Amino acid sequence: MEPRVYATYWIETAFPLQQAAETMAGEQSTGTFVRVPGETDELREAHAARVEELVELGEVAAPSLPGSVLPRSGESVRRTARVVLSWPISNMGLSLPNLLATINGNLSELKAFSGLRLIDLKLPAEFLTRYQGPHFGVEGTRKLAGVYDRPIIGTIIKPSVGLSPEATAEQVRVLVEAGIDFIKDDELQADGPHCPFSARISAVMRVINEHADRTGRKVMYAANLTGEIDEMLARHDHVLAEGGTCIMASMNSIGLPAMKVLRAHSELPIHGHRNGWGLLGRSPAIGMSYIAFQKLWRLAGIDHTHVNGIDNKFCETNESVIASARECLSPMFDPPHPGCEIMPVFSSGQSAKQAAPTFRALGSIDCMFAAGGGIMAHPGGPAAGVRALRQAWEAAVAGVPAEEAARDAPELREALDAFGG
Amino acid sequence: MEPRVYATYWIETAFPLQQAAETMAGEQSTGTFVRVPGETDELREAHAARVEELVELGEVAAPSLPGSVLPRSGESVRRTARVVLSWPISNMGLSLPNLLATINGNLSELKAFSGLRLIDLKLPAEFLTRYQGPHFGVEGTRKLAGVYDRPIIGTIIKPSVGLSPEATAEQVRVLVEAGIDFIKDDELQADGPHCPFSARISAVMRVINEHADRTGRKVMYAANLTGEIDEMLARHDHVLAEGGTCIMASMNSIGLPAMKVLRAHSELPIHGHRNGWGLLGRSPAIGMSYIAFQKLWRLAGIDHTHVNGIDNKFCETNESVIASARECLSPMFDPPHPGCEIMPVFSSGQSAKQAAPTFRALGSIDCMFAAGGGIMAHPGGPAAGVRALRQAWEAAVAGVPAEEAARDAPELREALDAFGG
Repeated sequence: MEPRVYATYWIETAFPLQQAAETMAGEQSTGTFVRVPGETDELREAHAARVEELVELGEVAAPSLPGSVLPRSGESVRRTARVVLSWPISNMGLSLPNLLATINGNLSELKAFSGLRLIDLKLPAEFLTRYQGPHFGVEGTRKLAGVYDRPIIGTIIKPSVGLSPEATAEQVRVLVEAGIDFIKDDELQADGPHCPFSARISAVMRVINEHADRTGRKVMYAANLTGEIDEMLARHDHVLAEGGTCIMASMNSIGLPAMKVLRAHSELPIHGHRNGWGLLGRSPAIGMSYIAFQKLWRLAGIDHTHVNGIDNKFCETNESVIASARECLSPMFDPPHPGCEIMPVFSSGQSAKQAAPTFRALGSIDCMFAAGGGIMAHPGGPAAGVRALRQAWEAAVAGVPAEEAARDAPELREALDAFGG
Repeated sequence: MEPRVYATYWIETAFPLQQAAETMAGEQSTGTFVRVPGETDELREAHAARVEELVELGEVAAPSLPGSVLPRSGESVRRTARVVLSWPISNMGLSLPNLLATINGNLSELKAFSGLRLIDLKLPAEFLTRYQGPHFGVEGTRKLAGVYDRPIIGTIIKPSVGLSPEATAEQVRVLVEAGIDFIKDDELQADGPHCPFSARISAVMRVINEHADRTGRKVMYAANLTGEIDEMLARHDHVLAEGGTCIMASMNSIGLPAMKVLRAHSELPIHGHRNGWGLLGRSPAIGMSYIAFQKLWRLAGIDHTHVNGIDNKFCETNESVIASARECLSPMFDPPHPGCEIMPVFSSGQSAKQAAPTFRALGSIDCMFAAGGGIMAHPGGPAAGVRALRQAWEAAVAGVPAEEAARDAPELREALDAFGG
C-alpha cells in the first residue's frame, strides 16, 4: 500500500456534508469541472484524494465567512463537521512545499464553504528520508544549556528594537548575573543598521563567555538571524565562532525551504519563532491550527517553538496553549522512527503565578518558561525574579501550593505579591 | 530624513481608537509592558513606530473574531477604523523577512482587537538596492511569448494531478495545435514520482519545440518547479536547457528568501502562484489583502501572478479581483525607480463572456487570460475555444458588444451559447 498523507479539517457548509467533503477531495486532487480525456478511472483510483472520515458537529446560526453560496436544493441550514482527507504521497512526492499546495491550495476559497480550517495533519514516516527533523530537541537543548530536572528559565531582550549592540550586551550582563538560563533576541531585532547582527552577537557573547569562564555555566542566547538564506548561514557561522549555543529564525518570514537549508547547515539548536502565526491561527473559521503548523516545522528541523502561555497577554485560550505545548512533546512518527519532539516555549505575560497551572496542564518539566516583566520588574531585582521562577516550579513539581512554598521562599513571596497569586 | 515603511490596517476595537493604534505601534517597535532601563526618550524618538493616519469607519454589532477584551471604561461599542503606521527602515533593515516580522508580528493576536487586517503597504525605493524586482514583467513576457496587442490566452493542464509525462505532453499537443499562447502546470503537479518534473518538461518541450519549428511561435509553458531550493535551481536549468520560457513557483509554499534566490538565478520569467492565499485573504477581519501581499513578491522578483477572475468559481468578489489586477499594473515605486509592474493572470471559471467586463474594469490588455473548460469544452473543440477567446477580447477592446461581434464570429457565437452570454 502506498503511504498516504492525512489532513483533518473543520468545515462549515450548507451543502450535504458528504458532497462538500468530496468537493474538497476533488479540488485538491484529480477533480475537474469539465471532464477531460485524460481523467481515466485508473488515474482517479491511483491519485484521487479520499474522504476517510466525516463527523457532523452541529449547526451554526450565521455564516462565519462571507462569499459562500447555498446549494440549489434551497437548503439554508449551515452545519459544521470534522473531515479527514487523505492523499497518496505519489501526488506531491516527499516535499513539504508541495504538500502545502495539496493540503491548503485553494480550499479556503471554495464557495461551498463558509468556514474551512486545517486542524491536524498526519504524515508518513517516509518524509524522514528527505527531512532531518530536530537536531537537538529537548535532550540536546538541555545538555547545551546545562539545565536538567526543571524548565529552562528564559527571558527576552527589551525594548524589542532600538538598543545598540553594547546596550544589548549590558542587558545580557544583568540577566546572566541574575542566574537566567536562556535569553532571546526579540523577533523585531535581527540586523537593523543600528544594531548589526554581527556586532550584537560579538558583544553579547563576550559577556556570556566571561560569565561562563567564571561560573562554568554558559547561558543559552537565541540569536535572531532571520534574513535571506546566505545571510542566515553566515550569521550562524558567526554565532558558532563566538561560542554561541542557539540561533533563532522567524518561521513565517523565511518559509520551509529556507528552514531546510538552515537545518542542514546548522550545528546549533534552532529556536523557531512563530510571529505572524496569528494571521493563520486566530480566526476559528479559517487558517490552520498550531497543532498542524508546528508539525511541518518540526520535520523541517526546529528544536524549540513558542506556544504562548497560560493567561497570556494575547487572545489565545489556555486550552489552545496547552494543546500546542503537549503536541510539541508528542511523537509525530511511530517507533522505530524518531518522534521529532521539540521543546515548547511558554512566554507572554508569564510570572511565578503561572508555574503551577502550566505544570499541571502540561504534566512535564520539558519546556522553556520565559518571563519579561516577571523577572525585570521583580521588587527584589532580576536575580530575585529568576529565583522566584525556580522556586515556583519546584513547588509546582512537588505539588506544594505556591502560597505555602512562599513561606520559606521570600523571592516567591514577593513575586506572588507583585504579580498576583 | 530616514526612509520609512508605511503599512495600512483595518482594525476593529472597543478601545479609544487613538489608544488602540498606539498599542499597535508600541507592540511592533519600542513598546514594553514594563518600562526597562534601556528604553530612553532618544531610543523611542529614533525607533518607535508612528501612527500616521487614523480614520474611523463605523461601528459593528458584534466582534468579528473571538478572544478580544473590552476596555476598563466599560465601553462596549466596537468601532472600525483605517490606521496607517510607519517605521524607520533602520528598525528592520532592507530585509523582506524582517519586514514581515515588523508589519505582522504579533499584531493579530492582540486582545484589544476583535479584527485586524493588513490592507496596504508602501515601501521606500531603497529596498531596490537589495531586491531585484521582476526581471521580465509585462514587456519581457510579451516578447518571449510573441504576443502583443492583446491578452496572452492561457490554460492549465487538467486533471490537476495524475497524468504521466507523456499524457501531459499529449494534452500540450492538443493545446498548441489549438493556437494557445500559454499553458501552465497545475499547482498540484510538481515532481511527484508518477510524473517527475524532468521527464515531464522534456516531453512537453519536445512538443512545444516541434510546434515552434513548424510555426515560428513558441508557446510559453509555466513549469511548476516548486520544491526545495536546490531542486528549484536544478529544475530551472532543465527548463532552460530544454528551451522552455517560463517557470512557476507556489509563493506560499516556498517563502520570500527562496524566491529571492530563485530570482537571482533565473533566466526565465517567474509565474508566482498564489495558492494558499485564501488562508490569509478570505476573512475580512484578519490576514492580509492581496494588494499588500503581491508587493512583497513583486519586489522579490515574480513576473506574473494570479488574481482570480470576474465571476470566478471561488468566493472572491469582482471588486477585489479587479483591485488586485490593477495593482499588479501600478508602479510600486515612483520614477526614476522601476515600478516593478507585473502581469496579472485571470483564471478560475473564465470563458469568452468575461472578456468584456474584465477589459472594462481593468482598462488594459496587459494580462494573461486563462480558461480551462472555456477552451476544452468549447462545442467546436479547443481550437475554436481559443479563437472564441481572442474574438471576445477583440470585440471588448473595440467596444463592440459580444453579441454583436458574434454575428461574424461563429466560434464566439458558440462560446456565448455554451457558457452563457
